[in-house]
Amino acid sequence: VLAPGSTIGILGGGQLARMLALAAAPLGMKVHVFAPEEDSVAFDVSSARTVADYDDEAGLAAFAGTIDVATYEFENVPADTAAFLAERVPLRPGARALAVTQDRLVEKSFVRDLGVATAPFMGVDDVASLEAALGRLGRPAVLKTRRLGYDGKGQAVIRDGDGAAAAFASIGRAPAILEGFVAFEREVSVVAARGPDGGFRAFDVCENEHRGGILATTTLPARIAPETEAEAVSLARRIAEGLDYVGVLAVEMFVVREGGRETLRVNEIAPRVHNSGHWSIEGAETSQFEQHIRAVCGWPLGPATLRGPVTMHNLIGDDVTAWPDLAAEPGAHLHLYGKREARPGRKMGHVTRLAPSRRD
Amino acid sequence: VLAPGSTIGILGGGQLARMLALAAAPLGMKVHVFAPEEDSVAFDVSSARTVADYDDEAGLAAFAGTIDVATYEFENVPADTAAFLAERVPLRPGARALAVTQDRLVEKSFVRDLGVATAPFMGVDDVASLEAALGRLGRPAVLKTRRLGYDGKGQAVIRDGDGAAAAFASIGRAPAILEGFVAFEREVSVVAARGPDGGFRAFDVCENEHRGGILATTTLPARIAPETEAEAVSLARRIAEGLDYVGVLAVEMFVVREGGRETLRVNEIAPRVHNSGHWSIEGAETSQFEQHIRAVCGWPLGPATLRGPVTMHNLIGDDVTAWPDLAAEPGAHLHLYGKREARPGRKMGHVTRLAPSRRD
Repeated sequence: VLAPGSTIGILGGGQLARMLALAAAPLGMKVHVFAPEEDSVAFDVSSARTVADYDDEAGLAAFAGTIDVATYEFENVPADTAAFLAERVPLRPGARALAVTQDRLVEKSFVRDLGVATAPFMGVDDVASLEAALGRLGRPAVLKTRRLGYDGKGQAVIRDGDGAAAAFASIGRAPAILEGFVAFEREVSVVAARGPDGGFRAFDVCENEHRGGILATTTLPARIAPETEAEAVSLARRIAEGLDYVGVLAVEMFVVREGGRETLRVNEIAPRVHNSGHWSIEGAETSQFEQHIRAVCGWPLGPATLRGPVTMHNLIGDDVTAWPDLAAEPGAHLHLYGKREARPGRKMGHVTRLAPSRRD
Repeated sequence: VLAPGSTIGILGGGQLARMLALAAAPLGMKVHVFAPEEDSVAFDVSSARTVADYDDEAGLAAFAGTIDVATYEFENVPADTAAFLAERVPLRPGARALAVTQDRLVEKSFVRDLGVATAPFMGVDDVASLEAALGRLGRPAVLKTRRLGYDGKGQAVIRDGDGAAAAFASIGRAPAILEGFVAFEREVSVVAARGPDGGFRAFDVCENEHRGGILATTTLPARIAPETEAEAVSLARRIAEGLDYVGVLAVEMFVVREGGRETLRVNEIAPRVHNSGHWSIEGAETSQFEQHIRAVCGWPLGPATLRGPVTMHNLIGDDVTAWPDLAAEPGAHLHLYGKREARPGRKMGHVTRLAPSRRD
């Protein structure tokens, strides 16, 4: 258990690290952010900052010397970086969580081996194996690089008439996975935390809407049956336990109707706090950010109780120019990430709205 | 109106500045903290830091060059410092709020001149004027230095048999004010915000309990009549308007029963966010810290609605050693200030508890 006054090292300096740092301070924890970008927005709210590349061993060694535990805000931490840090300080979540979630084929296989349903999938190494996979899984199907994709990047939908060679070229001929099309009713996620003692707390299931491959809105409660909600949480718990996970993770799932019943297909695991959990800052008794800090510090997890119906809208690119209206809207909780330039597709902030309470 | 990306300069680096900085970040604002102490706890969550004395003009000039608005976390900002900054950037609240609240005699006279009741008081400059004041106001009475007192420091209660000379010596023979004893039923405060456009929002009235001159607990709703609550808010508004105030202020009042009715006596004005408003982080739709940032940036004030019954307990000195229990208590929202040493009487943190909601 880390006492107040300890220092949490965070790899990555984006909005997730920023919101982790904002949650760490009230628990009396200091934060040291390590990121390659000079203008990392998490630097604004952290007590120590290192600007260095993830393969800079001198920088990593100095960083490790100042922190009591290391965590990260993104799943693409290089394996060597993770191993280097893990030799020096506790790394939470651990290297296994990174190894599994950095590779879509390894991740999907891990989930399937737990007996948990996913979209049908096959590994793709070249055009020939892609053609074979298309033969098995049919069209439409989604070709995704095994590594380094996010927010819809590194993906290609293959429909009737699309050539396998062109699709494979479009993702840079990288080792890939082909996933069969899932005709889903809705997308949901489970954001949950597991402590080093195995304690587990899930937030209520989140219903998500993506636009252009990027999360647009999250709404709670999700419009799913109570049995589906319980099953979703149970799947997330099996995944967390299978990874011997410490911290907050998110499991994205599709809700599919089969024979009149809702069933679930796991789509993706994020070994970190997640955009679909941002509503928890106002909407839950404990936010996902505080929960992650509690978990990596070995503190008891907080209650994850939903306070009431809540919606979260991402502010993407120019959406952020609406800030004066959002600032004036009663009950709209604005979260801006401090990014200077509103590039298209860039997550600039989010806004959370709770259903009016009795006194509003 | 300051746009996101602007920088707020804060004089003072304690827990109030720290919590202001934590509230500024989600609004996209950067914070530059100016404080004399190397280990200022607000530095941990601010994007820029200046360690310098308040009379360091070179330091202040450099600071002013990096900020878009200046504010402060304590009322004892030297007048010269305030004037120096106000020539360069908007200072909010303004110099008048400081001038009035830095001197208890000026403050009490200001309140009285608004037609607002206070404890009876008289200025004291020497033992002779103290004896005259004791003759008028009776005993017990409270002798307070006009300047630089806080948390009960610089005060002496004069009871039957206590000598005037000894009492005056005990406060260092400084210019002082003698206040007649007020037999109050309870202590309350109004924490409220006023914007540069004159917009005004008060939080619900806070009921406070002090121990040894230091705030111990704040509870809402206060156990006062609705008319008393309305009157308290009205008094705070007149005070804010009289000061042409911008930002959050707190007005401490005594509730006195006179002829069966509750009446109010204003005790003290704090031109800043206030310990008795800490509950608002979880307990109100907008926290006092966000409200202050909104006001000084010229943003619309947020709704100050109370979410439900709430209590705030200060963690003073060794109280903070209870952190493991508080961390494990469901519904206890812990706020630690990051101070290294738990000296007696030092505010180390606070804990806020909301009444259980329907779903807990």
